[in-house]
Amino acid sequence: MTVFRELNTPLRTIMTPGPVEVDPRVLRAMSTPILGQFDPAFTQIMNETMEMLRQVFQTKNQWTFPIDGTSRSGIEAVLTSILAPGDKVLIPIFGRFGHLLTEIAERNGAEIHTIETEWGQVFDQDEIIKAMERVKPKVLAIVHGETSTGCMQPLDKLGKACREMDILCVVDAVATIAGTEVKVDEWQLDAVIGGTQKCFSVPSGMAPITYNERVEKLLASRKKVERGVRTTGDAVDVRNPIQSNYFDLSQLQDYWGPRRLNHHTEATSMLYALREGARIVLEEGLEERFSRHRLHEKAIMEGIKAMGLTLFNDVTWKLPMVTCVNIPEGIDGEAIRSMLLGQFGIEIASSFGPLHGKIWRIGAMGYSCRKENVFAVLSALEAALIRNGASVQRGEALQAALNVYDPASRMAVMM
Amino acid sequence: MTVFRELNTPLRTIMTPGPVEVDPRVLRAMSTPILGQFDPAFTQIMNETMEMLRQVFQTKNQWTFPIDGTSRSGIEAVLTSILAPGDKVLIPIFGRFGHLLTEIAERNGAEIHTIETEWGQVFDQDEIIKAMERVKPKVLAIVHGETSTGCMQPLDKLGKACREMDILCVVDAVATIAGTEVKVDEWQLDAVIGGTQKCFSVPSGMAPITYNERVEKLLASRKKVERGVRTTGDAVDVRNPIQSNYFDLSQLQDYWGPRRLNHHTEATSMLYALREGARIVLEEGLEERFSRHRLHEKAIMEGIKAMGLTLFNDVTWKLPMVTCVNIPEGIDGEAIRSMLLGQFGIEIASSFGPLHGKIWRIGAMGYSCRKENVFAVLSALEAALIRNGASVQRGEALQAALNVYDPASRMAVMM
Repeated sequence: MTVFRELNTPLRTIMTPGPVEVDPRVLRAMSTPILGQFDPAFTQIMNETMEMLRQVFQTKNQWTFPIDGTSRSGIEAVLTSILAPGDKVLIPIFGRFGHLLTEIAERNGAEIHTIETEWGQVFDQDEIIKAMERVKPKVLAIVHGETSTGCMQPLDKLGKACREMDILCVVDAVATIAGTEVKVDEWQLDAVIGGTQKCFSVPSGMAPITYNERVEKLLASRKKVERGVRTTGDAVDVRNPIQSNYFDLSQLQDYWGPRRLNHHTEATSMLYALREGARIVLEEGLEERFSRHRLHEKAIMEGIKAMGLTLFNDVTWKLPMVTCVNIPEGIDGEAIRSMLLGQFGIEIASSFGPLHGKIWRIGAMGYSCRKENVFAVLSALEAALIRNGASVQRGEALQAALNVYDPASRMAVMM
Repeated sequence: MTVFRELNTPLRTIMTPGPVEVDPRVLRAMSTPILGQFDPAFTQIMNETMEMLRQVFQTKNQWTFPIDGTSRSGIEAVLTSILAPGDKVLIPIFGRFGHLLTEIAERNGAEIHTIETEWGQVFDQDEIIKAMERVKPKVLAIVHGETSTGCMQPLDKLGKACREMDILCVVDAVATIAGTEVKVDEWQLDAVIGGTQKCFSVPSGMAPITYNERVEKLLASRKKVERGVRTTGDAVDVRNPIQSNYFDLSQLQDYWGPRRLNHHTEATSMLYALREGARIVLEEGLEERFSRHRLHEKAIMEGIKAMGLTLFNDVTWKLPMVTCVNIPEGIDGEAIRSMLLGQFGIEIASSFGPLHGKIWRIGAMGYSCRKENVFAVLSALEAALIRNGASVQRGEALQAALNVYDPASRMAVMM
């Protein structure tokens, strides 16, 4: 029998579109001894986390809580709880995670309608609205930040249009929440799913979601309290019951709400992590946090360009926390990534589908989004490219980044 | 805007049937900085965890890995991946968690057949086999340790009988894994779900599962690789596709197996916790760990009886890690539980359904299963009962527990 040793991991600089480095305060919070799930000290933590998440989502929605699973579990919980067999759903696709929405929706027997655009593009909102008029779906499901292409879909007109046409607007904001504006109430989004392992800088394993009364009303019509905890007055037979127990939002409401009806056993340590992560987001301030993401994005973009490389997503709809770099002709993208990890302990990402082998994706999210990491990834990338025979402008990347961070010192050199 | 303070939790003695106290080494492991999910250092941790889980499940099954969700997510992943609409499933029910199996199975459109026995009883295995002969189900789904009643169902004959009748045997071993024998291979169980937050002493948030080639073969017939990561040769149209993306074991195999196909983002810190928890279980030794659970069980049982209380589950089929105590006539069970928590910082559990208000459930699981905790719960319970006007044998409970732990010192007093 093999004897296994204690956990002993290398320390990495993680500059991918997630999972990213976890804030040390979050790591520390996870080592807190646990509480029972119905301990009043614990239910208070549940309530506090809901309140903090509301602020991050910029919403007044009562139902704002995490699903106990990774980000896609949040998407599945929302879609499974809303969609019944035969329901029409419209999904605009501009990258891999649009496809994921179709995968999840079709497992619920929904009738899938898609519109697609080339990877690297986003949709004009009017084009989506036209498709809504044509398809007349029950649900519009759309990705906000598409990490596979580094693009961000504008959403501000869609919620209003959905409301006028009696469509529910479901948004995957896994990549954008806590990194850039996700204005749930102002944009009139009906259900939004966030991620923890990206701009939140909390480990993967929970998916904060929020939804409004329009969704709540629909859930109420599909609600069934489970045998074993059911009491008189609870509905037993319903039309179109939700096809998952674990992801049944109508039951989860009774667990997160005042009824406190036993469902799963809440993932205590992950909740501690999420509470601390949300607290740190709010302590920094949403505006300040979004500005920080834009600052480091600029430093990365300027550094990459100064090196002589080109950006795949240097567009007005660029996702601020993911910079996609075209792999130069003749260079093996994976050899560079291996060298970054093996020699420098730095991780950047490749991509999927039509972009596989064509771009690198450099993330700058949450705790990973800081100056030291930007300098580290730029200098290591330059060194690895030189080592692999690429022609780059030597020494320019860090100067360009310094120009973003410290323009005054540039003046001094020039004078 | 409310300003939230840092996490500040009371320290509890948790003597419930879960979640229980987490081993401090596991808490520490969770504060390890994270790795990317495809970092070779991380995939090695995935592989090591699979190997350790195989040892805990006493199986050679290749497919032994955690689902990223709480225990019931593991149950749902197994049942959803196996059951297609119209499939017959037989579920023997002897407490709340048998009902949960029906809840999950029926959401998959399965045809549910149940046999029930009174809460507090278990089934004669021959009775279950007779029902299998009558119903001829595709799946037998059964709970091993029913924490709602403190009873443990013998399973050793069922797997063999299932194999003879070409039935898949699915076992919920959430409460028993790492606390008492769960011999997956010897008992010929086809799929088994364990829990982390009970005898494993890892926080809730992952569900280790294992399944054999019989299940794998069935999954292969339902397998679909998702759009966005699909390549040539992957099946596109299948009969009876699995109705969940998140819980699709055929896709999860490609993530945990050598293909390493992107699915969800593994819950890094929970995996660190599970790896450390499994390592601690194996370091202690399965036999030693099971003996420890029986030793403290005995001390609790003797202490309770010496106090003058009676046990609900003083039966040969008692679940070793849960002791159910009849609430004495005229005593408000909830008042006692409140006093234990409020004055002593000790949590014990109430129960569900027909046993609600009739019994307390005292757990002794994993790291919570230790001498100090047994003494603490017995002395606090005695004090709370006296304080609430119950007639108890004063001072006898701890003596009875000491007789279990240290019989020699009793002799000295008697001489």
